[in-house]
Amino acid sequence: MESRRIAIVGLGLIGGSLAFRLKSRGHYVTGFDVDPERANTALHLGAIDGVGLSLLDGVKDVDVVFVATPVGIVSEIVADIAPHVGQETIITDVGSVKRPIMENVSRMDLPVTFVGGHPMAGREQGGIAAADPNLFENAVYVLTPPIEPKGPWPEALAVLKRVIQGDLGANVTVMDAVTHDEVVAAVSHMPHVAAAAIVNALGQTAEKIPKALALAAGGFRDTTRIASGSPELWADICLHNSASVLRSVAYLQDQLEGFQEALLTRDAQGLEEFFGKARDLRAEVPAAQRGLIPSIYEVMVPVPDTPGAISAVTSLLASAALSLKDISIVRQREGEVGALRLGLADGASRDLALEILLSEGYRAYGR
Amino acid sequence: MESRRIAIVGLGLIGGSLAFRLKSRGHYVTGFDVDPERANTALHLGAIDGVGLSLLDGVKDVDVVFVATPVGIVSEIVADIAPHVGQETIITDVGSVKRPIMENVSRMDLPVTFVGGHPMAGREQGGIAAADPNLFENAVYVLTPPIEPKGPWPEALAVLKRVIQGDLGANVTVMDAVTHDEVVAAVSHMPHVAAAAIVNALGQTAEKIPKALALAAGGFRDTTRIASGSPELWADICLHNSASVLRSVAYLQDQLEGFQEALLTRDAQGLEEFFGKARDLRAEVPAAQRGLIPSIYEVMVPVPDTPGAISAVTSLLASAALSLKDISIVRQREGEVGALRLGLADGASRDLALEILLSEGYRAYGR
Repeated sequence: MESRRIAIVGLGLIGGSLAFRLKSRGHYVTGFDVDPERANTALHLGAIDGVGLSLLDGVKDVDVVFVATPVGIVSEIVADIAPHVGQETIITDVGSVKRPIMENVSRMDLPVTFVGGHPMAGREQGGIAAADPNLFENAVYVLTPPIEPKGPWPEALAVLKRVIQGDLGANVTVMDAVTHDEVVAAVSHMPHVAAAAIVNALGQTAEKIPKALALAAGGFRDTTRIASGSPELWADICLHNSASVLRSVAYLQDQLEGFQEALLTRDAQGLEEFFGKARDLRAEVPAAQRGLIPSIYEVMVPVPDTPGAISAVTSLLASAALSLKDISIVRQREGEVGALRLGLADGASRDLALEILLSEGYRAYGR
Repeated sequence: MESRRIAIVGLGLIGGSLAFRLKSRGHYVTGFDVDPERANTALHLGAIDGVGLSLLDGVKDVDVVFVATPVGIVSEIVADIAPHVGQETIITDVGSVKRPIMENVSRMDLPVTFVGGHPMAGREQGGIAAADPNLFENAVYVLTPPIEPKGPWPEALAVLKRVIQGDLGANVTVMDAVTHDEVVAAVSHMPHVAAAAIVNALGQTAEKIPKALALAAGGFRDTTRIASGSPELWADICLHNSASVLRSVAYLQDQLEGFQEALLTRDAQGLEEFFGKARDLRAEVPAAQRGLIPSIYEVMVPVPDTPGAISAVTSLLASAALSLKDISIVRQREGEVGALRLGLADGASRDLALEILLSEGYRAYGR
């Protein structure tokens, strides 16, 4: 593998994780962040080989620049650095919305090659402290071709594919910007909007019945967990992907209106179809992923709410070298432990896990 | 504690859990289920002392009858058994919707006392196999007075309170049927409808872009987890609570329209307020619970996706007698382990957990 000089602009969770991994793979990684303290932390943590004294200093003489800033400022950053990097330098980004960035960049008529990118890796708001060199392993990593492909962009794509698949261990999918933005609106942005709307709707009920908030249960918190994201980040994302988000939210309203109609006309069959279609469609999600999203085989284990109860179960499975793909507590009520939901990689693992747990006297069952 | 003769009609998760707990507390518990096999399983598992040969035989000469059937048939069951139980017998139910039941029962002018009930305990569709004697511990258990209170219902309420608080360990809240139904629509029914609508809306996008399903991420599955419930059950619940569900879904529509308006007018501040209000309101949920819902103090721990990785973390905390109130995997992508999200009971436990994990070399951080 050839070692490259790579610059990372923006050292948050994504930038920091890129830095850790690429440095560990033998590339020479320099980093820059508007917040010098964050850059020094990255250096201190060993995420980067060097800190750029300025944005332009940070990207001087490198082969690849990853712009890992908030989506709203990617275009300006690209405009700022493009004239100052080498002719052969490849610039890419990690923005979760691609169309406006690709359109802006296309208008700039840059002297260098820009390929859009979006690692579809869960964006916990943990910052550099949560940076993880394994963040991209087996993740879907979307690369977006220029709107008017010209110059050596196929070569640039090839280089990025080698880095992303070879070094990051991600799976590259080439997708045009418009398609990408429609997809992320449907699978991520709209659900975030919906979660926030659900909480605010409960707020309307709580204005009349304050104890409604107090009685919200586990299912409510699970459903609205993503409503606890950064308001600034999500306002920003929605504004940058407004067309697709509005379309996706319109679909959501269509569905709610269909439900209302069925309920108003007391159409039991229509209601069952509404819920049944959702259940079946959701079950399809992993299956449709062609292996990129392994499906989960579940085992339920009632456990008492005592220290060590969860540890006893996980240790038992670990001793059989069973790897948990998922684990969560099914609360009988918020905060109270009821049962452990364990996700295993395949049917055989699930059956083995069941056998072990039952033989140890747990009232476990598969699903 | 005086031992009572208690009959349970319907031996699913709730009925089975009631049976296990009440029998273990020294009551004499008989059970009946339309499915004789389920009744025999309950007997075989030791959940009940005896099986009723028929519905009427099952409730003969008992002090309390718990009707734990689907909400749609509670009223008929009550009508069937009321004339055949003793004058002193108390009948109660566990239906998740109270107004129609209370209205039907009020019209019956029964010879015995009926008090509505709803244990607000997570309803996993596990059936008797998932029955758990601890299901109701610290759960909110709503009791609903008759619409036209008459006869010895205060005494009946007192008896049920003793059984529910003393034997089940739940917290009784007396609430009128209308208020109860508004609350459960807002905290449970509407979110279930929304989750199903979100999945079906993705389905509309997937009709144009099939790969959209394949790219659905962890956040999407978390948000729609409750959309995998039984369509029959949820159609039934919505039909029985239609007025409140329609009102709550209308609030959801209002919220979505407000969001659309803000996005169409590119009102960044309005969008931030929309997301910010949701985040703050959601954070209020546990605090508003006056201790019934303990809030969760979170610790994030990046872990490799290897057998034993999770066990190592949970064992470490168990060795310090720290009880996990919550545990889940933050997937960087569906099915892939990224970080463990641990929920602890209080700030002190979180700080101790952090200290232990950091001292063992984990890159853990609190939130």
